[in-house]
Amino acid sequence: MRILKKDEIVQVIEGLDPSYLLMQIEKAMVAIALNQVNMPPIGHLGFDSPPGDVHIKYGHITGDASYVIKIGSGFPQNSTLGLSNSNGLMLAFKAKTGELEAALLDEGYLTDQRTAIAGAVVAKHMAPGQVEGIGIIGTGIQARLQLEWLKTVTNCRRAYVYGRSSEKVDAFIQDMSGEFTITVCQTPAMVAARANLIVTTTPSNSPLLMASDIRPGTHITAMGSDTPGKQELDENILAAASIVACDSIEQCLAHGETCHAVNRGVLSEGQLTTVGAVIDDGIQRKDEDITIADLTGIATQDIKITLSVIEALNQSV
Amino acid sequence: MRILKKDEIVQVIEGLDPSYLLMQIEKAMVAIALNQVNMPPIGHLGFDSPPGDVHIKYGHITGDASYVIKIGSGFPQNSTLGLSNSNGLMLAFKAKTGELEAALLDEGYLTDQRTAIAGAVVAKHMAPGQVEGIGIIGTGIQARLQLEWLKTVTNCRRAYVYGRSSEKVDAFIQDMSGEFTITVCQTPAMVAARANLIVTTTPSNSPLLMASDIRPGTHITAMGSDTPGKQELDENILAAASIVACDSIEQCLAHGETCHAVNRGVLSEGQLTTVGAVIDDGIQRKDEDITIADLTGIATQDIKITLSVIEALNQSV
Repeated sequence: MRILKKDEIVQVIEGLDPSYLLMQIEKAMVAIALNQVNMPPIGHLGFDSPPGDVHIKYGHITGDASYVIKIGSGFPQNSTLGLSNSNGLMLAFKAKTGELEAALLDEGYLTDQRTAIAGAVVAKHMAPGQVEGIGIIGTGIQARLQLEWLKTVTNCRRAYVYGRSSEKVDAFIQDMSGEFTITVCQTPAMVAARANLIVTTTPSNSPLLMASDIRPGTHITAMGSDTPGKQELDENILAAASIVACDSIEQCLAHGETCHAVNRGVLSEGQLTTVGAVIDDGIQRKDEDITIADLTGIATQDIKITLSVIEALNQSV
Repeated sequence: MRILKKDEIVQVIEGLDPSYLLMQIEKAMVAIALNQVNMPPIGHLGFDSPPGDVHIKYGHITGDASYVIKIGSGFPQNSTLGLSNSNGLMLAFKAKTGELEAALLDEGYLTDQRTAIAGAVVAKHMAPGQVEGIGIIGTGIQARLQLEWLKTVTNCRRAYVYGRSSEKVDAFIQDMSGEFTITVCQTPAMVAARANLIVTTTPSNSPLLMASDIRPGTHITAMGSDTPGKQELDENILAAASIVACDSIEQCLAHGETCHAVNRGVLSEGQLTTVGAVIDDGIQRKDEDITIADLTGIATQDIKITLSVIEALNQSV
C-alpha cells in the first residue's frame, strides 16, 4: 500500500505526457456516456460555523482494476488562517478484494488538474476550428490551469481575461503572460466580444455572461457552477446553443448551468447530450453555432487521474 | 497528520480503560437520540464479480473538534485468497478547516471493537438484573468480541453457544473457555431455553430464533442484520417485546430486524425507541419483560472510537 504526499503526486503528474492525461480524462467522460460506470450519488456533509462543505465522490469504471473514493472539502474561511480553502485526498482500492491500494494526499491538486484537463478535452472536441482568442472569466487557480492546459489542444496564444479584483487580474497576467498575450477586459461582455473559446471559472451566483454578449461561433465551457445556487451563464445562452453537453446530465440538472435553463423552461432535458457522447460520436460544428459544455466535475475524472498516478508509479518500480 | 497501521491502533485501544470506551460508545448512541449529529445517509458501492460491498459511513457529532469518514468493505470471497473478508479504514478531519488529521488503517478492527462495545453498552442498560446465562448465536469474530466485552458489564461467566459448523464451535470454545464456562447447544432454541441475555451475531437471511423459543425476562441484542435481506429474529419476537430499541431508527427500518416486523405489520414505528434514549432516560424493566436491541452499526460509533484513539495519542505525546 502506498501513501503519497502532494509534492510526490505533483512530480508524477508533471512527468506524464499531457496527451496521456487528456486521453484518460476522455475515457472518464466517455464512460459516463456509455454507462460503463458504477457511480453512486455524491455524499455531502455540511458545516455552519465556520461554513464548510465536504463532498465524497466515488465509483468504479467497468474493467478498471480499482475503485476510487475522493474526499474533498471547501472551507471558505480557511484563507484567513493562511490555509487553502479547498482540500482533498484520493483513495484507491482493489475492485476484487476491497484492499486499500493507495492513499494520495494531494490536498485537492488532482481535482484541480482533472478539472483543467476536462476543460482541454472539451476544447479539443468542441472548440471552433479557428480559435481567435481564448476568454477566461475569473482569475483563480482554475483560470490559470484551464489556460495552461488549453495550450495542449490549441495553438491560439491570445487570451482575454476578466476578473472583479484588479489586484488578482494583475497577478494572473504576471503568472500567465510568458506564453500568452493577455488583454484585460473591463467586463465579461468585452471578453465575449473578442474570444470565441470562453472558459468561465468563477464561484458566481448570478449570470456574468448574457445571451446578447455571445457572438455566433463561440464555444463556452462553464465550470464554476459546481454546487446548487451557482450560475455563470444567462440561461438564454443555453437556449441559443446548438449543443449543450454535460459532463453528467444528472449532476448538471441538479446544480450546473443546465439546471437554471431547464428550470426556467428555456431548455428541455431532451436537448442535452454528454461530453462523452460528443467525444465518442464527434460533432459537426457549423460556423455560426454556439456550443456549451457544462462541467460539474465527475467521479470518473477523479478515478482516471488517480489511477494514472498509480499506474505511473507501478511502471517506474 | 498521523497515519496509523492496525497493530498500532490495537495497542492504543488495548491501552485504554474499557469503561472509557463504553462511555464513548454511550455518547455515540445518545447523540443519535438527542439529534446532536450530522449524519448523512450511508454511501454504498456494490460489485458483482466477485461480489463485494463498500460502504461509507460518516458524520459529525455536535461539539466534536473532528468529523470522521469510515470506508468499510465486505468481499465474501476474500477468504479463498487468504485475505480477510472485511476491511476498513477511518479518516478524521478537523471540523473547522477540513484538514486531514489522521488516517487509521485499522482494516476493520475499530468497527469490530465498536460493534462489540455497543453490545456491552446495550447489556449494561437493558439486560435483566440477574443474568443467568449469556447466549451467543454465531461463532465468528463478533461472537467472540461480544462475549469478551460483556465481561465488562456483567459478572455472569456461563455462556451457551450455537453455531452451524461444529468445527467453528470447537474453535470458539477453545478461544473463549478461559474465562467462561461454555455449553454447546444443538439449536438456537436450546440457547434461548438457558440464557436470558442473548446476542445474535450471524449473517442469516432467515429467523434463527422463534417467538416460542424466548422465555419471559429475556433480553436479545441482534447485531447480525446490517444490510437489507438479513434477519435473525422471528418478527413476532419484536411484537412480543416491551421495548424495541434501535441504534438508529432510520437504519433499522431500512435493514435491521425492525424492518421485517414493521413490514409485516406486527410492530409500528411509534413503538420504537433508540438505544440512546434508553441510556439517557433509563428503563424500568419488569421481571417478565422481553426486550430487544436492534443494532445496525452507526457512524457516531465510528466517530467516537476513532476520536478515542486520536485523543489517546495526543495525550501520550
